[in-house]
Amino acid sequence: MHNIKVDINFAVKSSLKSGLDSIEIDEYKDKANIGYQKLLKLVDKGDIGFPKLVDQALDNITAYAKKKLGKFNDLVVVGIGGSSLGLEAIVNALLPHGYNSLTFSERGGFPRIWIADNVDPYKIQWIMKNCQPSDTLVCVISKSGGTVETVSNFNILYKWLSEEVEKPKDHIIVITDPEKGLLRKWSEENEIDTFFVPKNVGGRFSVFSPVGLVPASLLGLEIDKMIEGAKDFIATNLQQALVLSAIYIFYIEKGYKINVLMPYTSRLSKFADWYCQLWAESLGKRYDKDGKEIFFGTTPLKSVGAIDQHSLLQLFKEGPDDKVFTFIEVLNHDADKKIVSVMDEEVDYLKGKSLGELLNYELYATELALKNANRPSVKIVTDIIDEYRLGYLMMLFMYVVPIVGLYFNINPFDQPGVEEGKNYAYGLLGLRGFEDYIKKFEQGYLKLDEYII
Amino acid sequence: MHNIKVDINFAVKSSLKSGLDSIEIDEYKDKANIGYQKLLKLVDKGDIGFPKLVDQALDNITAYAKKKLGKFNDLVVVGIGGSSLGLEAIVNALLPHGYNSLTFSERGGFPRIWIADNVDPYKIQWIMKNCQPSDTLVCVISKSGGTVETVSNFNILYKWLSEEVEKPKDHIIVITDPEKGLLRKWSEENEIDTFFVPKNVGGRFSVFSPVGLVPASLLGLEIDKMIEGAKDFIATNLQQALVLSAIYIFYIEKGYKINVLMPYTSRLSKFADWYCQLWAESLGKRYDKDGKEIFFGTTPLKSVGAIDQHSLLQLFKEGPDDKVFTFIEVLNHDADKKIVSVMDEEVDYLKGKSLGELLNYELYATELALKNANRPSVKIVTDIIDEYRLGYLMMLFMYVVPIVGLYFNINPFDQPGVEEGKNYAYGLLGLRGFEDYIKKFEQGYLKLDEYII
Repeated sequence: MHNIKVDINFAVKSSLKSGLDSIEIDEYKDKANIGYQKLLKLVDKGDIGFPKLVDQALDNITAYAKKKLGKFNDLVVVGIGGSSLGLEAIVNALLPHGYNSLTFSERGGFPRIWIADNVDPYKIQWIMKNCQPSDTLVCVISKSGGTVETVSNFNILYKWLSEEVEKPKDHIIVITDPEKGLLRKWSEENEIDTFFVPKNVGGRFSVFSPVGLVPASLLGLEIDKMIEGAKDFIATNLQQALVLSAIYIFYIEKGYKINVLMPYTSRLSKFADWYCQLWAESLGKRYDKDGKEIFFGTTPLKSVGAIDQHSLLQLFKEGPDDKVFTFIEVLNHDADKKIVSVMDEEVDYLKGKSLGELLNYELYATELALKNANRPSVKIVTDIIDEYRLGYLMMLFMYVVPIVGLYFNINPFDQPGVEEGKNYAYGLLGLRGFEDYIKKFEQGYLKLDEYII
Repeated sequence: MHNIKVDINFAVKSSLKSGLDSIEIDEYKDKANIGYQKLLKLVDKGDIGFPKLVDQALDNITAYAKKKLGKFNDLVVVGIGGSSLGLEAIVNALLPHGYNSLTFSERGGFPRIWIADNVDPYKIQWIMKNCQPSDTLVCVISKSGGTVETVSNFNILYKWLSEEVEKPKDHIIVITDPEKGLLRKWSEENEIDTFFVPKNVGGRFSVFSPVGLVPASLLGLEIDKMIEGAKDFIATNLQQALVLSAIYIFYIEKGYKINVLMPYTSRLSKFADWYCQLWAESLGKRYDKDGKEIFFGTTPLKSVGAIDQHSLLQLFKEGPDDKVFTFIEVLNHDADKKIVSVMDEEVDYLKGKSLGELLNYELYATELALKNANRPSVKIVTDIIDEYRLGYLMMLFMYVVPIVGLYFNINPFDQPGVEEGKNYAYGLLGLRGFEDYIKKFEQGYLKLDEYII
């Protein structure tokens, strides 16, 4: 059973001047419900598939992971955006800090993990230098099967594998669309182990598909628990998504421009990055569903407590009142450590305090300081961090974001704005069919020397 | 000699509807110059010291690093905010990806690096599990000497050291204020090796003080080159800071809310975090210097290309026109790799292309796509990434941010907004003298069950 709560005290009128009064709470829950009903319809029609992932059988994934256990020292995941951010969130939350520096046996025979996301030569080079081809499993992930960064990095890594190992195909897994795309065609022709992303599950909603689950399982994480958490959220706590959506809709309507997610734990740092993609790509839209030009969307901002009290908090408290804050509190921090002796009596007050206690005190202090400055905040409180809770939290936000988008009559499941840049890049790379874009590029990309200083 | 340029083509009228025309360029350079003159005065008076750091002698630091070389397998830096972000930027840019996974000899005898910033028990536990006390050097950094997170983490680490090694003091360096504070008192009493942060150098401007240089030198980086880059910027290219400041001032006055820094390389990811602190803490201010309440400040946003083309770009292009973009381009990527064979003829167009080329094409494509959407951007172009360039770029931004702040008549060197939260935390922790804050906390921090869902 979960123990996750959503606390909206500091976003309601009784605490905060700009907060929702009790009539508004109902009114905005109704608005959230409009979004939710639209989402339900899309799910029922089969257009949107991420909520159904909680019912999938996991045996083929766990059996595959079991078969590979102990055979590889390194797992290199080649993927970008929706194909890597979910996994990074999982790894950051659930594996030890400095995991890749542990020995094979300290890791329980599970591989180290490397994420080849960017086409950054330096990063790719050092991943290859850190790994031995003979001891490496390469997991290449692209929903479309043709993501240019992923295909490029994979080509480099494939060559690296082929030059050193006899059967490179035993060192590769593909995760892609069941039918379409280059990767599928190639994996079929070459009889490569392949897992599929359901057609109705988009990249940023794919963490509970093989995209997130296969690598997580290879790393020894309990993916069944993750799915159980996600499932329990849907079964018993949708109300939390409605309340959270209601608050976000309210402040978007009030003109707040920035949505800050600030977990008070370093373990959810990458979770916040995952959330930023989910929010930005789902809600930043030029047109609504009726084709009206609206340039919609607020900007997600990642922040990690207590670190960013020494970085962003000054702006949060004293800058413009244009941000809504969502804190995440962990009640019981794993491996919490008490300060039992202190170096100087000046800090005697720390004696007997634990690091986790201190971290949570700092959160309460920040909550109150922001409240006093009339800045709205909500807080998600979880008892601990584990597979179950992470699954729960991810599904919670995968409901919240589309609910907000659908209420505002935009399509939270597409990303038309990224096409133009892709087309220019294809043109510059010389892909056939994109010659027009070279011309357009040459006409538009004019740089005058006088403006280069 | 450097080869760093600032390209403002896509922020001027000839390219962009909302850009500056030639009269405005002059007008806003004059405004930037007002900020610059104020900065000069503060520097001349000795109130502000960061520009003078380029004239410091480095021998004592490099000699110290030389003395320690080969003696430790691990370096744990205990510090947060201004005491860690600069170092993280340096490590991310200049050390290999996966550096901590390399062997002692692959690292040339230099230690692995761990940053104990957050009071996150899980993180601290795993740092301790990864390291052996006998083989570890702990570098504790706090300008004030009393930062609660740093002191707490250090107390835990000090106990860990003391229980295992005979002379813990041989495993500790302190970097702090020359006179004041707990750390200075303690390091003096216990005869611990100590380096000083000049009084007139604040945390977020301290990367060229021992705060950044001592750990960098211990890691084998050429700190003299870093300083040389910073010095050359001041000596020969202040004009770039004025132009960049002019653009930022213009768009702040136009009401743009968000300042995006988007390097197209994973190596400058942490540089962007460092920049976000610099921008947010320097410019987010409730009062101007005359005490007028203004709630000033725009929000910095970190983004990394090409990764965030699959995350934030959709919002950048199709969301509200409220962002100014600063790209960083690296002309020559280290260890660039050509794609010489491809897995399928469908991707033949990639043959002969290098990863670095691809990355830069994607940048040009994004620049143009944003320009076409009438979104203002500037670009900093550097030939390569090394100590010299990193030093140069850091000093460039350390000039730009105060110039912007001083032009707008705010104090970019304080951070009064973080005090209230600190005081509540001290109260909650039971520090003597903060009893009033417990009362205030209890009165303000009221949570009603009905708002916890």
